[in-house]
Amino acid sequence: MEKLGFIGLGIMGKPMAINLIKAGYDLTVYDINAEAVTAVAAAGARAATSIAEVARTNPVIITMLPNSPHVKAVALGPDGIESHANAGTLLIDMSSIAPAASQEIAAALKEKKIRMLDAPVSGGEPKAVDGTLAIMVGGDEADFAKAKPLFDILGSSAVLIGPVGSGNTCKLANQVIVALNIAALSEGLMLAKKAGTDPQKVFEAIRGGLAGSTVMNAKAPMMLSGNFKPGFKIDLHIKDLANALDTGYLTGAPLLLTSTAMQILQQLHAGGDGQSDHSAIARFYEKLAGETIKD
Amino acid sequence: MEKLGFIGLGIMGKPMAINLIKAGYDLTVYDINAEAVTAVAAAGARAATSIAEVARTNPVIITMLPNSPHVKAVALGPDGIESHANAGTLLIDMSSIAPAASQEIAAALKEKKIRMLDAPVSGGEPKAVDGTLAIMVGGDEADFAKAKPLFDILGSSAVLIGPVGSGNTCKLANQVIVALNIAALSEGLMLAKKAGTDPQKVFEAIRGGLAGSTVMNAKAPMMLSGNFKPGFKIDLHIKDLANALDTGYLTGAPLLLTSTAMQILQQLHAGGDGQSDHSAIARFYEKLAGETIKD
Repeated sequence: MEKLGFIGLGIMGKPMAINLIKAGYDLTVYDINAEAVTAVAAAGARAATSIAEVARTNPVIITMLPNSPHVKAVALGPDGIESHANAGTLLIDMSSIAPAASQEIAAALKEKKIRMLDAPVSGGEPKAVDGTLAIMVGGDEADFAKAKPLFDILGSSAVLIGPVGSGNTCKLANQVIVALNIAALSEGLMLAKKAGTDPQKVFEAIRGGLAGSTVMNAKAPMMLSGNFKPGFKIDLHIKDLANALDTGYLTGAPLLLTSTAMQILQQLHAGGDGQSDHSAIARFYEKLAGETIKD
Repeated sequence: MEKLGFIGLGIMGKPMAINLIKAGYDLTVYDINAEAVTAVAAAGARAATSIAEVARTNPVIITMLPNSPHVKAVALGPDGIESHANAGTLLIDMSSIAPAASQEIAAALKEKKIRMLDAPVSGGEPKAVDGTLAIMVGGDEADFAKAKPLFDILGSSAVLIGPVGSGNTCKLANQVIVALNIAALSEGLMLAKKAGTDPQKVFEAIRGGLAGSTVMNAKAPMMLSGNFKPGFKIDLHIKDLANALDTGYLTGAPLLLTSTAMQILQQLHAGGDGQSDHSAIARFYEKLAGETIKD
């Protein structure tokens, strides 16, 4: 059985690790949460007690962590991959982090001849469980080819976008568009409601035309029924837009509407909606309007 | 042959009138541009020399005009429909105007027992020519049923949304969402470009996911090739967002992102892009960024 390290057994990482175990990999897993390690060990993984232990014993390591600082700590910290992995190790970081952080980590690891791909995903927990994530990859073609059998287990698609950092740049572009498409839908449906027109009928009339979108099909029914159960949480979208705005600042990309969308998300967080689905962007408009899109 | 009046023979009205002639209607047409009248008369219509003449002689009249003031003048002006049409006449206004203007005109016409539908369309000139417009209708069910055979000639779908004004409200919700989805796409692709990632590959990687939209499929290729040939012009989208913002003001609908989108469109107009396709929203970002999405 092929040896594989896996660090980060949260909502996403746990089902991904389990899918790799089921596919026959000899997994060594670590998380700062010992309970998560125990649970995945019960499914057939080896339980490691440190990052260093994972790093020393595995030629390929997947990380699935919350954000840039966590990946930096795991990759470059004193107990981390840089200090303990063998030359030739491949780190596949599937966390959604800042592209600049991916590039910084990859450059540091390169000094120790450790390879890296950034490979963030979209699709959320249900697709992590089903092994149908969409995987956006940055790095070298040879490394991508090496990782491809793993991506085929974890996802329904994996696309090499460009050099390291490109996976996360792609993910951020995706998240910018999704947040703004949700806000666009909210403004359109609330305009209909306030003007005395049934938003459900407007949705049905326009979904087949140029205004139609995957966001509209997925989120309009949630807004129309007042159901904002996640799905993808407001607090996670805040993290992604923070990385997008940082990337915009570093590279000079103009993000005028995204900066307002960030304010909307942050106001929702402040109002207690951080754990709601990101379709709750509609709730920001509902609060302002003093009525709901739902009748 | 059934008699039908048609007022407004511009880019949209002319091919719509010609489709009705081809379908066998006895059309009487009028436009302030005598050349347009002559052209449509050559296709088989009767040429009228005034609105009053159209109003007196037709039980059903279609108007296809630029904006609210034009429809008000044709419907309620001294030479207009209110003063000259018979009781029981049905006005089908297919212009894209302010919902409040539709309601005001319908209320005034009702005093003279003249019925009205507001029935704006989407799809632009190509779908006007093909008779495949999407028609969004406000008014009574009986009037909608009476107009349905005409809608079936002019469009591929016609949906009764609600009372008079609802057709235009629906159209404005559509235009709000379209403008913002184009801006969202522009911000996402420019972020990718500035961060050093190929926007073409980003488009291909994300179009199948939650960020996917009809706008993305139609407009990303235009942005990626730097082709902003209309299509639907910036100046027309300015008209629609002006009506949307007015409607938001009158009804209390919050249009935070739409107001910024309006500024973007107006800046493009000021910079000479008023006759470009609305996908040229990307050009606003390109000017700020000092580079194009296209390589």
